[in-house]
Amino acid sequence: MRQLRKPYLLYLGDARQPTDAKTARGLRDWCPDDVIGEWSLPSAAVSVGLPRWSPAEAAAHGAGSLVIGIASVGGSLPPAWLPDLIAAIEAGLDLVSGMHTRLTSFPELVEAASAHEVALHDVRHSDRQYPAATGRKRSGRRVATVGTDCALGKKYTALALTRALVARGAKATFRATGQTGIMIAGSGIAIDAVVADFIAGAAEVLSPDNDADHWDVIEGQGALFHPAYAGVTLGLLHGSQPDAFVLCHDPSRTAIELFPHASIPPLADAIAQYVTAARVTNPAVRCAGVSINSSSLTDDAWGAYAAAVEAELGVPVCDPMRGGVDRIAEALLAHG
Amino acid sequence: MRQLRKPYLLYLGDARQPTDAKTARGLRDWCPDDVIGEWSLPSAAVSVGLPRWSPAEAAAHGAGSLVIGIASVGGSLPPAWLPDLIAAIEAGLDLVSGMHTRLTSFPELVEAASAHEVALHDVRHSDRQYPAATGRKRSGRRVATVGTDCALGKKYTALALTRALVARGAKATFRATGQTGIMIAGSGIAIDAVVADFIAGAAEVLSPDNDADHWDVIEGQGALFHPAYAGVTLGLLHGSQPDAFVLCHDPSRTAIELFPHASIPPLADAIAQYVTAARVTNPAVRCAGVSINSSSLTDDAWGAYAAAVEAELGVPVCDPMRGGVDRIAEALLAHG
Repeated sequence: MRQLRKPYLLYLGDARQPTDAKTARGLRDWCPDDVIGEWSLPSAAVSVGLPRWSPAEAAAHGAGSLVIGIASVGGSLPPAWLPDLIAAIEAGLDLVSGMHTRLTSFPELVEAASAHEVALHDVRHSDRQYPAATGRKRSGRRVATVGTDCALGKKYTALALTRALVARGAKATFRATGQTGIMIAGSGIAIDAVVADFIAGAAEVLSPDNDADHWDVIEGQGALFHPAYAGVTLGLLHGSQPDAFVLCHDPSRTAIELFPHASIPPLADAIAQYVTAARVTNPAVRCAGVSINSSSLTDDAWGAYAAAVEAELGVPVCDPMRGGVDRIAEALLAHG
Repeated sequence: MRQLRKPYLLYLGDARQPTDAKTARGLRDWCPDDVIGEWSLPSAAVSVGLPRWSPAEAAAHGAGSLVIGIASVGGSLPPAWLPDLIAAIEAGLDLVSGMHTRLTSFPELVEAASAHEVALHDVRHSDRQYPAATGRKRSGRRVATVGTDCALGKKYTALALTRALVARGAKATFRATGQTGIMIAGSGIAIDAVVADFIAGAAEVLSPDNDADHWDVIEGQGALFHPAYAGVTLGLLHGSQPDAFVLCHDPSRTAIELFPHASIPPLADAIAQYVTAARVTNPAVRCAGVSINSSSLTDDAWGAYAAAVEAELGVPVCDPMRGGVDRIAEALLAHG
């Protein structure tokens, strides 16, 4: 499993629009104790409100890594960023990137990192080999977030649920499976970058044996109904062996995003399909709640929708951005 | 997609037991026109009954590749084989290997291959990048073999079905997804070696647009109910967009091999789960037949079993090794 060195200096490059700095804002919001400063080019027009420190200043304040906190056009690394990145390496910081273009594809970065004995982390990629899954039942408890589609709140729900469990005195760990989640957690596996044969095996490595009353909260990926990514979803589900799952959904979607012919099944059907799939490695699996991205609904419409879905499915229906997921956390802990 | 250069010289190394030469026998049986000779070390005690030619003799007879036709202990490449492999390279032959250890991990082979401008094919591995799946409906017809477990006849059934379709005058192509299938077909994609995000995308590349009356017969992998490999199975199924599938089963198994806690569902349930999964990319998918590995049954028991399953499921039930799959091919063509 990849391990990152915290705390972080967030790099904003030449970001022009606040939306460019989505990753940096996510880190500031979800691991505020782990981000100690921000740095950018003089041309940048965006800040995330942290102390402005050069790489050398951040290193002097104890930073472990510079994290590229912005999305660049096309996922590539602009040459204008290189001097700042090399300065960070020379200050002894690891570099962390979630871009498609690998840091390790730049000979000047590889050479500098080698000379200064720091690491280059391309968290979107997987450079490790994982074993095939064994299916062996592991100790501890696990809850996975799953979805009716991509990009509708599985990471956010898992983070909120981890917080809600910890707030109730439970032992809980967020287990990251995507690049932003890995940056937030400081560890994890980019599960969609693993060789296909080892998806479930990597998921087993991600949530190892633990205390009987400890909850791993596993960030889901994709959807069982997604024409491109369902293989990742299923392998991750099997290797996670979840005792419970939370189904994430956006009621404004009727078909998979960008796949208009792939309709999203009714929620009860979606839950039944996830239960059938997850029973392969945990016959006791159950749906513990539904997490709704309700941003398309008015307050009144959201209230009516949540009540109707809750009456139909018999599990708590929450929006982590609108009231939180406390009731799902309570239901998890009450069930034991 | 990987393309191999036929015809083949089959290499048997120092094989001691006939079972060691399973790959070589598979090639001799399934593509007899493409295997022109065999070669081995003096210590070998196994033959597959082909003319014994050195690499240079085979090259003179038009061979395109030397194929390693035996399994070695632990999947590694014994140093004793290297002189023969280098002789093959020097004779202008490509090398083809299905072993875990890559040919390209031997500097002497890489150097010789470069000097003689031949290719080293590690067909168990994938060195190509594939696009994400688009879900776009492709022209032509497709039938996939799927299974209740690994290693119970999905490749054999696909090969037999391709032969049966061609024998009836239909246009049909076997599409290989595993190393032995790729050697037989001379092309294909080791689907379990693809990066997880691109399983379905690779499957789309494997069976491109074709004539409206052409059948791609796609070799399945794993099983939806397999704790380790179901992600591969599902992604391959989605990318294949099959119009029909043939369910392969071994009635002597009640649980997934090596996973005693993962029980195999009843056949009707297994078919229903495959239909649900495959509808994501082809709502018209249907089960076209059941292919049984009946080696555990007496003739009488097999007859009774086949009749009972056929009565229950309403589709042809065949064993490719015991009567063939003609009735499944006929059912496919009759349905159109």
